[in-house]
Amino acid sequence: MADDKSLTPRSEDFASWYNEVVLKAELADYSPVRGSMVIRPWGYGIWENMQQALDRMFKETGHENAYFPLLIPMSFIQKEKDHIEGFAPELAVVTEAGGKVLEEPLVIRPTSETIIYHMYAKWVQSYRDLPILMNQWANVMRWELRTRLFLRTAEFLWQEGHTAHATADEAEAETLGILQIYRTFMEDWICMPPITGLKTESEKFAGAVRSYACEALMQDNKALQAGTSHFLGQNFSKQFDLKFQSEEGREEYAYNTSWGVSTRLIGGMVMTHGDDDGLIVPPRLAPTQVVIVPITRGDDTRSAVLEKVDEVAGRLRAAGVRVKVDGRDHLSPGAKFYEWERKGVPYRLEIGPKDLEKGSVALARRVRPEGAKRKEFVPEEEAIETLPARLEAFQDELRETARARREENTVRGVGSIGELAEAFEAGAGFVYTGWNGDPAVEEQVKEATKATSRVIPSEEFRSPRVPERCVSGDGPAAMEVVWARAY
Amino acid sequence: MADDKSLTPRSEDFASWYNEVVLKAELADYSPVRGSMVIRPWGYGIWENMQQALDRMFKETGHENAYFPLLIPMSFIQKEKDHIEGFAPELAVVTEAGGKVLEEPLVIRPTSETIIYHMYAKWVQSYRDLPILMNQWANVMRWELRTRLFLRTAEFLWQEGHTAHATADEAEAETLGILQIYRTFMEDWICMPPITGLKTESEKFAGAVRSYACEALMQDNKALQAGTSHFLGQNFSKQFDLKFQSEEGREEYAYNTSWGVSTRLIGGMVMTHGDDDGLIVPPRLAPTQVVIVPITRGDDTRSAVLEKVDEVAGRLRAAGVRVKVDGRDHLSPGAKFYEWERKGVPYRLEIGPKDLEKGSVALARRVRPEGAKRKEFVPEEEAIETLPARLEAFQDELRETARARREENTVRGVGSIGELAEAFEAGAGFVYTGWNGDPAVEEQVKEATKATSRVIPSEEFRSPRVPERCVSGDGPAAMEVVWARAY
Repeated sequence: MADDKSLTPRSEDFASWYNEVVLKAELADYSPVRGSMVIRPWGYGIWENMQQALDRMFKETGHENAYFPLLIPMSFIQKEKDHIEGFAPELAVVTEAGGKVLEEPLVIRPTSETIIYHMYAKWVQSYRDLPILMNQWANVMRWELRTRLFLRTAEFLWQEGHTAHATADEAEAETLGILQIYRTFMEDWICMPPITGLKTESEKFAGAVRSYACEALMQDNKALQAGTSHFLGQNFSKQFDLKFQSEEGREEYAYNTSWGVSTRLIGGMVMTHGDDDGLIVPPRLAPTQVVIVPITRGDDTRSAVLEKVDEVAGRLRAAGVRVKVDGRDHLSPGAKFYEWERKGVPYRLEIGPKDLEKGSVALARRVRPEGAKRKEFVPEEEAIETLPARLEAFQDELRETARARREENTVRGVGSIGELAEAFEAGAGFVYTGWNGDPAVEEQVKEATKATSRVIPSEEFRSPRVPERCVSGDGPAAMEVVWARAY
Repeated sequence: MADDKSLTPRSEDFASWYNEVVLKAELADYSPVRGSMVIRPWGYGIWENMQQALDRMFKETGHENAYFPLLIPMSFIQKEKDHIEGFAPELAVVTEAGGKVLEEPLVIRPTSETIIYHMYAKWVQSYRDLPILMNQWANVMRWELRTRLFLRTAEFLWQEGHTAHATADEAEAETLGILQIYRTFMEDWICMPPITGLKTESEKFAGAVRSYACEALMQDNKALQAGTSHFLGQNFSKQFDLKFQSEEGREEYAYNTSWGVSTRLIGGMVMTHGDDDGLIVPPRLAPTQVVIVPITRGDDTRSAVLEKVDEVAGRLRAAGVRVKVDGRDHLSPGAKFYEWERKGVPYRLEIGPKDLEKGSVALARRVRPEGAKRKEFVPEEEAIETLPARLEAFQDELRETARARREENTVRGVGSIGELAEAFEAGAGFVYTGWNGDPAVEEQVKEATKATSRVIPSEEFRSPRVPERCVSGDGPAAMEVVWARAY
């Protein structure tokens, strides 16, 4: 770790830079429990803003929230063959409770398909009881060997949607509808425009028929799987006896979907926007969008400055801006500037005795166009009136910068595994190639490049001319696939 | 359980009535995991409204949300002597994770003082780092032997606030400030006016110096401990080395408080307001405040009715009312009325062909003054304009009814344990007596009456003339105390 004041530059060691930003911006801290972290108020405030935005999108599309038990009987997890294979190595198990050894061990949910579809089976009799469109905000536990703050922790917070439908078509439409919601959310709120598509068989969720994902490209050109939406078919409904009587009077199994995003998104936000000075938080997610630092040099002007600061803060709040006044006496203005920059607050506003005289304020933007001055002196009225629009412009700029970076680091037209390896050695992000659909090719690519298949891209992300040959050289391409080294 | 259509009357069997209401109003359901329940969307929607209101009150008083780990090392729980004594019998223990037996068992948090103060100790160096005012919304686990939906479940949802202060006075003020927030919230939002006060030594939180509580009186005249606020002194800071350098340069231990309310409040709401037809939800908490049932008798008027219903729903929503249109085709209006009454929606609005002709709507209120007609026919405009105020009036009425019931069922001036037993046999709720402060008297009272001390009442709840003698007959009263049979 670099000295206390500065961060390891991204170009030197991206992983160290990431950890330092998370810790020094006070997003999170290590806890005494292996693999579990503490989400501190600045990080949790960002998560609350993410939750509110997503929750609104879910509710607008007819979903309701509910809450299912943390503990799941071991026998439930074992019912779906692929599901237990996928999750068995990561389970945390409660074997004792209330002073006694339990007859059947209970696992802390790694995900809740099993217990939720067991309950749905109790509630559903007829097609009239369908669809069920539920979501829960919850903690889950996956005992990972190698953990990283936000990106891979034993316990994490997420939402998991679980739906049941009368037809496969309806369930598939739900799966894709949610994928679009995730994409829109990541673009509009996190300014982290992902590509979307279908996971290959070897990368899909344990128990799914088809998994779709949003994959975002980080500044180190590694991909982050940022959200997944699964079409589960009847895999779980058959195991949990989730049946209904159809309109025609037949007994049928329901079709399920499940989908989730987690606090991992905060890690994605850090790695999409942060710079060598620290975090940069998109305004829509920032718990504080504008910090006001009073510059109180002498006792004679102090109260006038503080009064003006409160007035400006009040007017900005009335305009819907989230404002914090940093009135701490024991810190110099410089120390405050430094702290709020590190935390990624989009705008800083300074008001001092000279500003009072001139009726102006100093505005500092967390990211500036190259060559722009550190501070802009703006008449007070203008600052108050323009700040909401400045915040939106900042949001748009972050999004477009991230989108341009993703495109600049995307490589198409690669024809062989050798070229693929060269592309990654040269620092490529997403690489598009043809693929014959054979999982053995995924193995070859992984060995040669450390990259994995991220998605078979959705139509809007497909290359204008889809490659004709498989990257392995073995026959024609059945589809296009996107490769990347990934978190 | 009564037949599918009706509920066991409260007068016949209050406990059965309660369970039936919770299940039939679809607030919650039993789960396959012993002692854990599923909170269904109607119940969770009420919880979300409670959360939003409380969260706002916490934030307005300077508290921030954070998130701490679910799992706590066993050694942490054991550090505070009273704490482990209180919680040991109820712990759920993770002994295996990731396919291996853990070196040190981890407990699922029954409450988070230990891990939170461990973290505060990392973050606090100087008095300038204090106070820390944090809250978390989380699930906790207490392995209870006898469970009741919402009232006592192995897993429950709650908020737990944890603060650290430089002085005892400041911590005590925080403890009492939160007690007031809880009281205000219970009165204004749940319409469940509690009494407040100090817990006796034998009833206080395991690890607290002093515990304060809100105690509400249910319709069966049993008390429900609905929220607690604890002054922890330095009990935890000394165990977790939560020290700071004071302004004078001395090293001192911080003073802590902790406080919480849980999904138990939903049980309190049910038992405060429900009637023999089902649930009654205070309008401010109701996920749906007004349900609109279209009466579509013939195809010729159907589309006109539905159009009017959408128009009225839209106008009510614009006025800030939470409206649901129940457009289900396979249910008769009567079946819908029955369902929404059982779920406790405050107002129902019916619109049919005749209403269209007359420009009126039918309004049905979930609770009516005695002798009032089931429905009121009101001009459409008037209905839309007056519904927000009607909802507020309904809220006020529920609160005043509950307050009056609490007062009617409160007995003062009881002078002996024999009289105390008679009062409870005669159905008393809260009984106020003098008490010499001896825990042996609490034991005697419990044996004779099954009642426990609920609180030493706060000043505003004390009797105008505090009794001079202890109810045991043994000497003068050191204080007044409130007894009740309790959940």
